Amino acid sequence: MNLNDKIRIIEGFPKEGISFKDVTPLLQDGEALNETIDKLAEYLNDKNIDVIVGPEARGFLFGAPVAYKMKKGFVPIRKPGKLPYDTISVEYDLEYGKDKIEIHKDAIKPGMRVAIVDDLLATGGTIAAASKLIEEMGGDIVALAFVIELTDLRGREKLKDYDVMSLLKYNI
Amino acid sequence: MNLNDKIRIIEGFPKEGISFKDVTPLLQDGEALNETIDKLAEYLNDKNIDVIVGPEARGFLFGAPVAYKMKKGFVPIRKPGKLPYDTISVEYDLEYGKDKIEIHKDAIKPGMRVAIVDDLLATGGTIAAASKLIEEMGGDIVALAFVIELTDLRGREKLKDYDVMSLLKYNI
Repeated sequence: MNLNDKIRIIEGFPKEGISFKDVTPLLQDGEALNETIDKLAEYLNDKNIDVIVGPEARGFLFGAPVAYKMKKGFVPIRKPGKLPYDTISVEYDLEYGKDKIEIHKDAIKPGMRVAIVDDLLATGGTIAAASKLIEEMGGDIVALAFVIELTDLRGREKLKDYDVMSLLKYNI
Repeated sequence: MNLNDKIRIIEGFPKEGISFKDVTPLLQDGEALNETIDKLAEYLNDKNIDVIVGPEARGFLFGAPVAYKMKKGFVPIRKPGKLPYDTISVEYDLEYGKDKIEIHKDAIKPGMRVAIVDDLLATGGTIAAASKLIEEMGGDIVALAFVIELTDLRGREKLKDYDVMSLLKYNI
């Protein structure tokens, strides 16, 4: 199956000038979803990973099934105020303004081998911040795996210290 | 494994008086996550289901792996403005005020057999609204499967027209 056929391009979402890559046609096709999860898990399979981390909300859609497939745990990264237990947070720069993400304090133990799974690698800002947060907790970022990569946004350069993999590449 | 041991009770989250059931210890334990997904999928297995639907964000954490396990598609239900393509929405009453959820117009075809998977059955308001939305699109709600049920909140009564299953039950 050509998984690219299952990505719907929506011009002008969420704002003018953006050519949005909609993964919902892929998700709602059982065969395409299965192939996507299997390919992500296959890439991570020989890396001796302890846990999968995924940012809300679309990171949950791919990270949780990858964790299930690999029989590993899944740790959510969320927007402020969403996680109920003690958290550690990190603030990071957006094009305009700042954003903040949180993770549970007890989620990552020193020495844990961590893979982050997300739907999209754009500028890499969120994932760079998430990776630093996990490293501060003593975790080891073993791989970063994405369904889609927007290559012109050069997220790979921002994440050059890490092992980065994406299944589908688009220029913008 | 006793999955109840993997639910963390957090008093006073998100507001005073609420005894929050935190599923993150279950998620971050690979064995517990596997058993949870397998049990949800096992319940749905003989119901001839076409697609799994899950509301954001915690519904994604369980619904997407169940869809993967069953080799079915997954359809997200989201808060307004999050889905990029044409949507249908429904407004529903909360204890104070109203809330709104959306689904993609092309996500459910007439005659589709649908199971909704979510982390928590509380009052059942969101799931009742989601079920009506899917039925308006011509879908058939075959089952509603939850990880946790707060029995005193009587969500089952609100959802009495449906086949409801939960893995873990708490009084409040």
